Amino acid sequence: MIYLDNAATTGPDGRALSRAREYLTDKWFNPSALYKAGFALQGELKKARSALLAHVADESAFGLVFTSCGTEADNQAVFGYGRRGNVVTTAGEHAAVASSVAELGNRNIAEPRFAPLNADGGVNAEKLLSLVDEKTSLVSVIHVNNETGAVNDINALARAVKQKNPRALFHSDGVQAYGKIPFRLGREVDLYTISAHKIGGLKGTGALIKKKTLPCRPYIFGGGQENGERSGTENVFGIKAFEFAAEEKFRTLNEDFARLRERGGRLWESLDKDIFVRISSADASPYILSISAPGLRGEVLLHMADDRGLVVGTGSACSSHAKNRYSRVILACGADERTADGVLRLSFSAQTTESETAEAAKILNSVARELKSKML
Amino acid sequence: MIYLDNAATTGPDGRALSRAREYLTDKWFNPSALYKAGFALQGELKKARSALLAHVADESAFGLVFTSCGTEADNQAVFGYGRRGNVVTTAGEHAAVASSVAELGNRNIAEPRFAPLNADGGVNAEKLLSLVDEKTSLVSVIHVNNETGAVNDINALARAVKQKNPRALFHSDGVQAYGKIPFRLGREVDLYTISAHKIGGLKGTGALIKKKTLPCRPYIFGGGQENGERSGTENVFGIKAFEFAAEEKFRTLNEDFARLRERGGRLWESLDKDIFVRISSADASPYILSISAPGLRGEVLLHMADDRGLVVGTGSACSSHAKNRYSRVILACGADERTADGVLRLSFSAQTTESETAEAAKILNSVARELKSKML
Repeated sequence: MIYLDNAATTGPDGRALSRAREYLTDKWFNPSALYKAGFALQGELKKARSALLAHVADESAFGLVFTSCGTEADNQAVFGYGRRGNVVTTAGEHAAVASSVAELGNRNIAEPRFAPLNADGGVNAEKLLSLVDEKTSLVSVIHVNNETGAVNDINALARAVKQKNPRALFHSDGVQAYGKIPFRLGREVDLYTISAHKIGGLKGTGALIKKKTLPCRPYIFGGGQENGERSGTENVFGIKAFEFAAEEKFRTLNEDFARLRERGGRLWESLDKDIFVRISSADASPYILSISAPGLRGEVLLHMADDRGLVVGTGSACSSHAKNRYSRVILACGADERTADGVLRLSFSAQTTESETAEAAKILNSVARELKSKML
Repeated sequence: MIYLDNAATTGPDGRALSRAREYLTDKWFNPSALYKAGFALQGELKKARSALLAHVADESAFGLVFTSCGTEADNQAVFGYGRRGNVVTTAGEHAAVASSVAELGNRNIAEPRFAPLNADGGVNAEKLLSLVDEKTSLVSVIHVNNETGAVNDINALARAVKQKNPRALFHSDGVQAYGKIPFRLGREVDLYTISAHKIGGLKGTGALIKKKTLPCRPYIFGGGQENGERSGTENVFGIKAFEFAAEEKFRTLNEDFARLRERGGRLWESLDKDIFVRISSADASPYILSISAPGLRGEVLLHMADDRGLVVGTGSACSSHAKNRYSRVILACGADERTADGVLRLSFSAQTTESETAEAAKILNSVARELKSKML
């Protein structure tokens, strides 16, 4: 199988898994316990927190709260800090932010405002800023768009937001950026979401990075774990696997980035331009290549490719539950319905090989030609 | 090491773990994906949901939503269904319910009402019912008290609550009951919380069992997984380990129950009655034995026992973050401060052996005598 849906989830990193295994089989104690075997795990959690944070942020300014996933971290940011006035976000958010911000509106807690996108899926910065005013409590902008790979310059956006309203907080969903693109969190970003299973960790672990100066706003209440910021017995195995997987990813981040940039470029070059158009821009994250075969149905192409051993996505796996036929994000890029209907998302991992991308291009050309010929 | 803190967390069940392992190493796909490898996992999730439910409930009346832990499931029940009027609960709840209900009060959403306990930690049923009125939206009563093992007759309580107010919903935290005590959910119970890592599953997986007739009230918003009731990529590995661990527990539930009842009885008989008093009643869950050495500090005894290879708890591991020296639950049982200070919680698993409980009694007698002699 050629697996090109790594933005939906990626296989656990073997080395990280074997290093973390002892926390599953031997060191499974409750880290909140007072006896040595339990208490010792507090130190292990501390190490993981520090290591995960240090890859992207200055530890003197930021802390990290472990959550059960990126979605929960996004919910904690939006519901915890978007508490009044209006909340400004973009039409290109993952459902975890988009639905949470919409829910703030449903509950009459804050007015949701969605900034439009450019053609590549990045936010229109000028229009985003025009939505920010003195009543804005929170601004949330996805770092790397999960459908198109567009990279928003969140540090610059956060700075511009603060110039307009210094009290507005700035959150970014960094799930598709962390461990994949070179980046350090600027001082103007307040909250940043990361997830383990997109970088070789396990499902069931995420984190919310937050400025130390922010007030404590738990979303899950209970025993007061995570300094009162997230209750529930700590998932030590998942957290250590996250730490180790991130270590692997960040070690080779720059080489992986450059290699995948080339590899994705060659894949695109090999695709039949009479059939396919490109949605991702050339400077998108090299981990995501969004294409479309206008006039063909992406879902049908997905199944035909699947039958030939190639796994790709159509937009976000998380949108497969949505009732709409077309991706709201792709439509927000300005695509017409024919283009939106034909979208395929190819997403890579550091392990994706040249022969896989070459073979993928052949399969995609072949199934698209076959489907097109059937429609004539 | 003799491990008698199984109510805090218990070791993953070896057989369950080896059966679930393939979902970690091979079948790690995103269950929301449309290609075969992903989509097939939806069937696996369905099987797990059905199996976990069938152990305690009628599948035609109840559904099951996977969450990241028991604490999250409690939060979903309390914040989702305790939305107005008053919410009635007990002084013996786990912090996940107690803090969530208190938070409803802090936010002026609903008035929190706490019913007092009997000496064994069970709720005073008469007083609980006196707090229920026409404005009660939710009643939440822990099934097995996590500090004393007291078993509340939740089916009878739910029936009595509905007689007083048919519109009030009834929730129970069943984390210490599920897989441990013989029980079926009655039709009057609306919501029931369970957790994997207390029965040989993994940290990071829990579930909320709910009546099918209840409206959908997600607590984590996003991609719409779990029929829109809990967003976030499904933790398939954790969920399958939960399914398999529960299968093991329920297979021998009655024998384990009877054996631990005897074993705990003999442990108690072996303890020095000049030092120890018993807090758990004779009909408490046989998985939890709460005792106290009044006048001695439980925490000191815990560390002394730990040095001799015996691991026990002092109340709930989840309370170790609380600022108060004494357990609020033990005080609510009517214990004086000397007794509350001396509390130890011994909690068993089906794997706890007779020689372990016998040795535990010896160590407890020995460290308590030593500490007492030092205090003279």
